[in-house]
Amino acid sequence: METIRRTKISDLSQLPFGTQVSVKGWVRTRRGNKQVSFIALNDGSTINNIQIVADIEQFGDEYLKPVSTGACIHVIGTYVESQGKGQNGEIQAEKIEIYGTADPLEYPLQKKGHSLEFLREIAHLRPRTNTFGAIFRIRHHMAYAIHKYFNDNGFYYLHTPIITASDAEGAGSMFQATTLDLNKVARTEDGSVDYSQDFFGRQTNLTVSGQLEGELGAMALGAIYTFGPTFRAENSNTPRHLAEFWMIEPEVAFYDIHDNMDLAEDFLKYLIRYALDNCKDDLDFLNEMYDKELVERLELVLAHDFVRLSYTEGVKILEESGQKFEFPVYWGADLQSEHERYLVEKHFKRPVIMTDYPKEIKSFYMKQNEDGKTVRGMDVLFPKIGEIIGGSEREADYDKLMNRINEIGMHTDPIWWYLETRKFGTAPHAGFGLGFERLILFVTGMANIRDVIPFPRTPNNADF
Amino acid sequence: METIRRTKISDLSQLPFGTQVSVKGWVRTRRGNKQVSFIALNDGSTINNIQIVADIEQFGDEYLKPVSTGACIHVIGTYVESQGKGQNGEIQAEKIEIYGTADPLEYPLQKKGHSLEFLREIAHLRPRTNTFGAIFRIRHHMAYAIHKYFNDNGFYYLHTPIITASDAEGAGSMFQATTLDLNKVARTEDGSVDYSQDFFGRQTNLTVSGQLEGELGAMALGAIYTFGPTFRAENSNTPRHLAEFWMIEPEVAFYDIHDNMDLAEDFLKYLIRYALDNCKDDLDFLNEMYDKELVERLELVLAHDFVRLSYTEGVKILEESGQKFEFPVYWGADLQSEHERYLVEKHFKRPVIMTDYPKEIKSFYMKQNEDGKTVRGMDVLFPKIGEIIGGSEREADYDKLMNRINEIGMHTDPIWWYLETRKFGTAPHAGFGLGFERLILFVTGMANIRDVIPFPRTPNNADF
Repeated sequence: METIRRTKISDLSQLPFGTQVSVKGWVRTRRGNKQVSFIALNDGSTINNIQIVADIEQFGDEYLKPVSTGACIHVIGTYVESQGKGQNGEIQAEKIEIYGTADPLEYPLQKKGHSLEFLREIAHLRPRTNTFGAIFRIRHHMAYAIHKYFNDNGFYYLHTPIITASDAEGAGSMFQATTLDLNKVARTEDGSVDYSQDFFGRQTNLTVSGQLEGELGAMALGAIYTFGPTFRAENSNTPRHLAEFWMIEPEVAFYDIHDNMDLAEDFLKYLIRYALDNCKDDLDFLNEMYDKELVERLELVLAHDFVRLSYTEGVKILEESGQKFEFPVYWGADLQSEHERYLVEKHFKRPVIMTDYPKEIKSFYMKQNEDGKTVRGMDVLFPKIGEIIGGSEREADYDKLMNRINEIGMHTDPIWWYLETRKFGTAPHAGFGLGFERLILFVTGMANIRDVIPFPRTPNNADF
Repeated sequence: METIRRTKISDLSQLPFGTQVSVKGWVRTRRGNKQVSFIALNDGSTINNIQIVADIEQFGDEYLKPVSTGACIHVIGTYVESQGKGQNGEIQAEKIEIYGTADPLEYPLQKKGHSLEFLREIAHLRPRTNTFGAIFRIRHHMAYAIHKYFNDNGFYYLHTPIITASDAEGAGSMFQATTLDLNKVARTEDGSVDYSQDFFGRQTNLTVSGQLEGELGAMALGAIYTFGPTFRAENSNTPRHLAEFWMIEPEVAFYDIHDNMDLAEDFLKYLIRYALDNCKDDLDFLNEMYDKELVERLELVLAHDFVRLSYTEGVKILEESGQKFEFPVYWGADLQSEHERYLVEKHFKRPVIMTDYPKEIKSFYMKQNEDGKTVRGMDVLFPKIGEIIGGSEREADYDKLMNRINEIGMHTDPIWWYLETRKFGTAPHAGFGLGFERLILFVTGMANIRDVIPFPRTPNNADF
């Protein structure tokens, strides 16, 4: 076929009617009558299909037969005003080239709707559906907005290591990364695993957080953020857990907990505004199909200042609420999603930043308050999600940090380098972590975290 | 101290002289005489220090004593025109608060220059040096430029999996990710490793490339890119190899090899122009200290169209060059860095895109040419670096792809999902991979890849 420069379907509406165009994409449906065939074509650039009108007499019934759902075609034709309702333009086909067919007896994505569960089993094909096209375009826009926000605000993107010999928080099970042959594991004379023969000469794991290395960056470059994969080998088959997920962790020198809260609120509002401004068609589709309150919920977050209150105040409100909870509430308890959502959805009706948690339920690196009981942690609580961000001002004082480390019996050997930040030019600093998939759940309105990452990793599932 | 909003050192020059300012940062040096102390302060926002002038009589000798190299301080003072040469402004200190000291007997980064080898051993502190501050700021800007380029051109960022059950290219040794207890590896009755008890119910490894999954994305969203960590468990202790590195892999439906070459050239030029436009101070420093031809080399890349020639033509030029090479050149040989650099640096004096390689030295997925001998691979060759990008048009035809797979005896079980892209709506498509650290080596002029990633992972080294 002659070479007219291809136009993406998302760009067609900028053209005047009457333009000769070339479009390429995958057939979503083909219907019609004896005179004319209507092909809904999608190329991934937008959720909106373009309608191709093909004259049966011109092309022949036989020629159009393989133009079925899933086939990939190249169409040259004229972009004309649509005669159908609710459509802007359509293409009157002059030539149709078939790149690839999709046998209707084999191709799993036929016209009818499919369950999200079924689509998870064909994660290699599900991005071709409206739902997953929308989700992964939104995921892209959110990732880009994150980089743009930090770049525009003078943060440096820091790649913290994936394979690590330290366990950032003692935060649960880790995957081991090894080159030892599991068929005959090398052993020392006393029978233990001989890690001197492993690739790194020691036991190594996949990171659960880049925070500790992020702090090193902040104490040199001033303001950094990480955005990379993190891993938890927890055997949890729930709609909220992945073994492999992406995390964003800003860390800023000279920030206290208040600066940190300002950053978190400004950052989240920026992201949600960016989604509303840049993902309208995809959000409208998801709002219509999955969650009728989605756009309203996004706008709610933008409409209000986030409530800021201490854990102690929060527990008091919960205790006095008269609400029945599955898990009991008392000072010292690790609040559950039901508690967080009660505060956000029922009590305040807007996002909440909760601060100053009991030290026992938070990590060793959080700055200790003078009461001896609480630390300067801060969690941002969102409607539907519960905790979307967790962070803190960090303990900058070497002695206080070491006291806490000794109190909980942590080993300091693997983090000698972290401790040196408090020895050499220590400074107040703070940061937080945002689970990327939690954000995407919130922005898309989807209910299962496996539906917001292209290739989910969960117990017994590493397909694709 | 009172709270004046902190100004980053990079932003000071925008202020009028006479402004009262608050700056915070780390002391690079302190020198002076009996009347006055000059403190060079850096906060990571720029390679340029700000000079703090402190009156000895006002502060007292004792008070200033801990303000030594590495200490972190907060200064309030007046931003005034500098009396020194070559400086724009300095700060006449009114108040100095010491956040954290750095004992001169213990702090490893004293005034004098340190070898890059020594600094690698203290990777937790090296971002505080001029060299590594410059490198990691440039690294940030390059990462951002990559995201911006693709976003502005309608590519979607796709997170391909890190833990995978497939081996993208058979590209050498992989790290195994496991939750099996290496002290007593679970075994089946026949004595082999019982992977049903591993986290994913099968053997899993760390990815060597996101390309195969990237192709799935391109065949649905049209144009995608990946940007994530990849792993090679090769026991190579060279200045060019890392066990963990970051890779960028765009993949585009409806692109042929020529579109792919256009994309690669435009992309690389965009990145290098972005560096010259956004990293001037850091590039000037590296040009002065490490590589006097750095900026010139960057500008050379922008000045010319890249040469495009076939492998066969390239081999002919090398054979006829009369040049002595360590590795012999003949049709069929996998070209070495010395050959690539000869073509780029000596023969053409500009970047080269070489295409149409013998199929035996390239991967199974490359589109087969009609000659039956070559495939539509394309490598971009750069001065000093050699291959900076490797890519190809992909074989879109199911039967041809399967023939090649059978020819080389590959197992198809682990990539059943990949093969389905050729069964259902296959289309011409192409893509390439850019090793991020190779790019940073080129843009910074550094010689060792361990110096362009914050926390390098190499054999026997997983510190930090």
